[in-house]
Amino acid sequence: MRLYDYIASANCLKVRVLLGLLGRDVERVAIDIFAGDTLTPQFAALNPSRETPVLEVDGEGVLVQSNAILWYLAEGTQYLPDEPWERAQVLRWLMFEQEYVIPGIAAPRFWRMTDRVSAELVRARRELGQTALARIEDALGDRPFLTGDLSIADIAVYAYTHLARDAGLALERYPRITGWIRRLEATPRFVNDLLPYPSNASRGAGRSIYDPSEQ
Amino acid sequence: MRLYDYIASANCLKVRVLLGLLGRDVERVAIDIFAGDTLTPQFAALNPSRETPVLEVDGEGVLVQSNAILWYLAEGTQYLPDEPWERAQVLRWLMFEQEYVIPGIAAPRFWRMTDRVSAELVRARRELGQTALARIEDALGDRPFLTGDLSIADIAVYAYTHLARDAGLALERYPRITGWIRRLEATPRFVNDLLPYPSNASRGAGRSIYDPSEQ
Repeated sequence: MRLYDYIASANCLKVRVLLGLLGRDVERVAIDIFAGDTLTPQFAALNPSRETPVLEVDGEGVLVQSNAILWYLAEGTQYLPDEPWERAQVLRWLMFEQEYVIPGIAAPRFWRMTDRVSAELVRARRELGQTALARIEDALGDRPFLTGDLSIADIAVYAYTHLARDAGLALERYPRITGWIRRLEATPRFVNDLLPYPSNASRGAGRSIYDPSEQ
Repeated sequence: MRLYDYIASANCLKVRVLLGLLGRDVERVAIDIFAGDTLTPQFAALNPSRETPVLEVDGEGVLVQSNAILWYLAEGTQYLPDEPWERAQVLRWLMFEQEYVIPGIAAPRFWRMTDRVSAELVRARRELGQTALARIEDALGDRPFLTGDLSIADIAVYAYTHLARDAGLALERYPRITGWIRRLEATPRFVNDLLPYPSNASRGAGRSIYDPSEQ
């Protein structure tokens, strides 16, 4: 099993966080999107969408989409419940992450940090990001984690939510979210090793899933 | 168990198609977003995101997000495989649907049909829709369905892909997709009962998940 992994991608961070919690490691292939590593024919054969992470499993094939990789690696562990209703609630948060967190926080963060689009478009997307944060804040209520115990729902939503400030979204207005982030980061074996984007990111090298043509 | 269901929503259609294939019915609560049914405090208590479909299960609670509802209802049936790798591949397509099909086809379709945003924004999103269609076309290859046998992956991706023409995207360039749509629609008990948007949709009544402020 090998993971094609970009150290500055929070989608890849999701998988690294889960592997850390599980005390498990897999072979890693380091990818740098800004060095053009996802633009090669070899990478397109792995994942035509040219996105990271990609999990390659000997004898099975290739699995793409970070949340699907999380699900696969968490099967049979404490981070994905067995009971169908609870599993469906975890999945509901993985879908929420795609519908609200990625377009509302991840995309404007990327655009803001790499100067790829107009300030107007960043502002419009930030409105969706505020909605995302308000929904998470309300849903947390008095719970320690999104669906009860810590699960891949928390890992997936955490990945870009904890970076909301980079998108110009103040987290101070959301005390439950900041408490939940602290709680996650204080969990034994929870390691966040995300690196910032490289200095050439703003010159438009490589290609990102958050490029405007992909949005 | 009851389903809050809007007859003109293709997200709701996903659930109705699965129930039809399963030969199963549940209590339905008819919702009309353009009549303001999702804007009531009662609906917000069910789903703060004011989206349909919503599944309410006695003794359990509420489940939102159409793809999570599909997953829950398909557990233990032929439409969701048991084997972890195959399940992960189904989930990969549910995530793809959220990342590509919803923003690239569903949103520009809604905007075009209800005159809510500029033609320029519709065009930009159609580029993402073309990418979505190209990925599906390539992935189908020689397979009858996305992951082997007909599964909820096909149902989820079908919902808005079969409506691509409404977004101004020609399906004729994608023979595998049109064959796959025909194959799905010819499956015994596959019923597509989607109605068009009502005539007041273009006057901005109600609120849709595809409203620009939600994008």
